[in-house]
Formats: sequence, structure tokens, C-alpha cells
Amino acid sequence: VGVHEAPGDAAGSSTGYGSHEVVVETPDHGVTIATLPADSVHLTLVVWRERLRALRMDQRLAHVQIFKNVGRAAGATRQHPHSQILAVSILPRAVATELEALAEHRRRTSRCLACETVERELAAGHRVVLTAEGYTAFCPFASRLPFETRIVPTAHRPDYAGSSDEELLSLARVLKQTVGALARVLEHPSFNLVLHTAPMAARASKDGDVEFHWRLELLPRLGSLAGFEWGTGMYINHLPPEEAALQLRAGL
Amino acid sequence: VGVHEAPGDAAGSSTGYGSHEVVVETPDHGVTIATLPADSVHLTLVVWRERLRALRMDQRLAHVQIFKNVGRAAGATRQHPHSQILAVSILPRAVATELEALAEHRRRTSRCLACETVERELAAGHRVVLTAEGYTAFCPFASRLPFETRIVPTAHRPDYAGSSDEELLSLARVLKQTVGALARVLEHPSFNLVLHTAPMAARASKDGDVEFHWRLELLPRLGSLAGFEWGTGMYINHLPPEEAALQLRAGL
Repeated sequence: VGVHEAPGDAAGSSTGYGSHEVVVETPDHGVTIATLPADSVHLTLVVWRERLRALRMDQRLAHVQIFKNVGRAAGATRQHPHSQILAVSILPRAVATELEALAEHRRRTSRCLACETVERELAAGHRVVLTAEGYTAFCPFASRLPFETRIVPTAHRPDYAGSSDEELLSLARVLKQTVGALARVLEHPSFNLVLHTAPMAARASKDGDVEFHWRLELLPRLGSLAGFEWGTGMYINHLPPEEAALQLRAGL
Repeated sequence: VGVHEAPGDAAGSSTGYGSHEVVVETPDHGVTIATLPADSVHLTLVVWRERLRALRMDQRLAHVQIFKNVGRAAGATRQHPHSQILAVSILPRAVATELEALAEHRRRTSRCLACETVERELAAGHRVVLTAEGYTAFCPFASRLPFETRIVPTAHRPDYAGSSDEELLSLARVLKQTVGALARVLEHPSFNLVLHTAPMAARASKDGDVEFHWRLELLPRLGSLAGFEWGTGMYINHLPPEEAALQLRAGL
């Protein structure tokens, strides 16, 4: 087996620098976000914030991805409650695309796209799972997966790292409720929990204000991605988000 | 449950037009690409070409995605050997991004990116699974999944629909060999087979020549995508493609 080097002139052009941290969320093996006390979930959310702040001091890093895998179908390789903090030296294309879309919407409308989405979802109502303590949980209009759910600060909050202790305690309670509803309706599904927040590459913006609005994505993993999704990046989802939200509200 | 309408002014802006065809590849329930005779696999590949040509007559369609899901972990909902042809009225972003990259490479170097990749892989050798009958099968340098394998026409071929009967018979044999190696090395894994070819949105190009080079992607589904992949669109792959190719060569 040869060394894994890029063919041709690309060899050695990337440093491959990064970091990977595992957050052990509790000493208890058999608990979940839904069954842990809110104080304990709060501690994990605070650790995420602290590590995000610390990793941003490292100028070699461009993006920090915080996530949690629960269950085998969600790619979890261990059962003990844990989350992961992975930092890379490049800005992922998916994040760059999102930044461009948010900036473009701001230019066209002078508004934050996520603020507008939350307002419209609250006005429409039928895709909302719950709205409480400054957060709104809803099943997105273009849900990629059945029961996909977003938890978003209802007011404009660019950066998760800017959250106060109090805001994160509220988030812990809203997260517990939402995950609890998923667990009841889907009988403890495998899921990924994915934090989307202002990337580090955006930290140096001239006016000091980053065009972002952070969110948590809850992705239940009930099926497998198939050839159509791999080929196109488009998703086939048989469950309307209105029906998903209806069931999740009933499971609260 | 309300009607599934976009919040705000986006409602009704998309027609949702498209088509979905299922190709039943054989009357025999228990066979695979590896065990079917080459003539039989050839017939399927010819049907793909004919349907691609026919669907392109429909001006309302922008992209045709041909794929095959094998096994539950690859999202297959039925066992009988089949493939699917799904056409949509928009150009998927993933395809648009690829078109841009190919065009940009042509502008910079006057060369086809895929031709150059195949040449370099053949020169390097250690990621090549086999090269025969006008096709090269290799594990890409930036493989997203363990044992990901591409089958590419070794010479420049923009469009799968332009393949001759003879070329598709050669493809049937190379595909059988490659899938057979995967089946032996990985003990009949679930996998997706995904055709990437010149999209219809590119058919009207001024010089009549589409900047593309078609390929088949073989994606064994040994694990599950996890939170990092969902958040960033980047992939963690623990198996170097050189090691994958070495094992697949031994399994030929």
C-alpha cells in the first residue's frame, strides 16, 4: 500500500490540522437527554460553549462542528451519553453556501433569513412543535428526513458561543422536551443532534456582526439515504412536516 | 394537518413536475449483478440509455438520476433486482457545483478534470482496482466511504446516453467484475450504484459539446453517516483508498 498522497500537484497542499474532543455527559451509562435532569443537560451545553470559545483562539482552525450521535443508525460507536467537538482548518462548503445564502437574503431584504423563517412558522403554526423560553422548535418546510426538527432562538442570536448561562438552561429544558417527544412518538429512535453556529471564518467581519442565526438540528435516523440522495443531494421524504409536528406536539 | 405550502411568498412557485420509473432487471428474484450473465446486465444498461434519451425529449425536465439500491442499509425497500430512474424539473445543486468545477478546470488547464484524474490514477496505480475494455475502476483519493469505487470510461466520454451497445457490453463485464470483488471482500454488502452523467440542463450548450465525463459510483454502505457529516458535508473515512483498492484487487 502506498502513502495516501494526492495524485499530481495537489500533494502536500493541505496541513490536515484539526482537533477532536469527546464530551462525556454524565457518569450514568443508561440515561438520555430526555431522562437526565435539566441541570445535567445544561452542563453539557455550557461545555459546548466554553470549548467553542477556547477553540476559536486557535487561528489555524476555520470551523468547529459540535454534534451528538445517538444509536447505531446515527453512526454512534459507543452507547455512553457523549457528544463530540470536531474542529477543522477549512470552511466546509456546506457552511460557506449557507453563509452566502444568509448574506444574500440580508442584502435583498435587510432581514435575517432565520428570523423571518421563525416568524412565518409561528404565524402558520402547523409545523411548530413548541415555542417556549426564547426558543422555537419546528419541523422545517423542506424537511430532509421524517421528523427532522430545528430548535432555534426565537429572537436574533448569531452565535451559540454568545449564549448566557440562563439562555442555555432554557435551551436544556426545551431540548429535553423535544427529544422526549421524539422518544415517545418514535420509541427511542437513533438520531443526530447537530449544532449550526457562526463559523470562525466569519469572526473577522468588518462591522463585527456575523450574519448568522444559530440552530440545533435534530435528525431522527429512521431510514437510509439511497442512490437518489447520493447522486443529487436532494432528499425524498414521505412524511409531510405538518404531520410530523402534529405527532410531536401530541408526544410532548 | 394543514396543506404543505411554503411559508410566505414561496408558495406555489414550484411545479413539482417529474417522473419515476422502476427497471425490473430480471425475472429471477435471488440474483445479483455479480451472478447474472453479462448479457443480462447489458440489457439493463441499455434500458438506462434508452430511457435517458427518451426522457430528454421532455423539456420540462432538467435532470435524470439513475441509481440502484441494493440491501436495506442502502435504502432498498424491495429485494428483487431493480434500478430506478428519477427525473426532476430542477438542476440539483450538487450537479450544478460539479458542472462549475469541470468548466473551471477546463478554463484553467484546457483539460477534462476526469480525464486527468484517470490518467494520474493509472500512473500512480495503487488506487486502481482494474482497467479493462475502455473502463477504469478505482477508489477515489478523497473517498467518502470505505471501499467507494468509481467506474469511469478511460477515454473522454461526456454522456452515458452516447454509449454504443458494444461499449455498454464492456461496461456490463467491468461492472460485474467490480461488484463481484466487493461481494467477495465485504460479503455481499448493501450498496448504492449511482450514475453521474451530463445533465439535461447542459444539453443546449453553444458549441454542442457538454463539459462532463460520465461515471458510475459504487457506494458500499458499511456504516452510517453521523453528525459531523450532516453538519459539514465532509466525510470521515477510516480506510485509505489505497488499502481498499488492494483488497478489491485481491478479490477480483
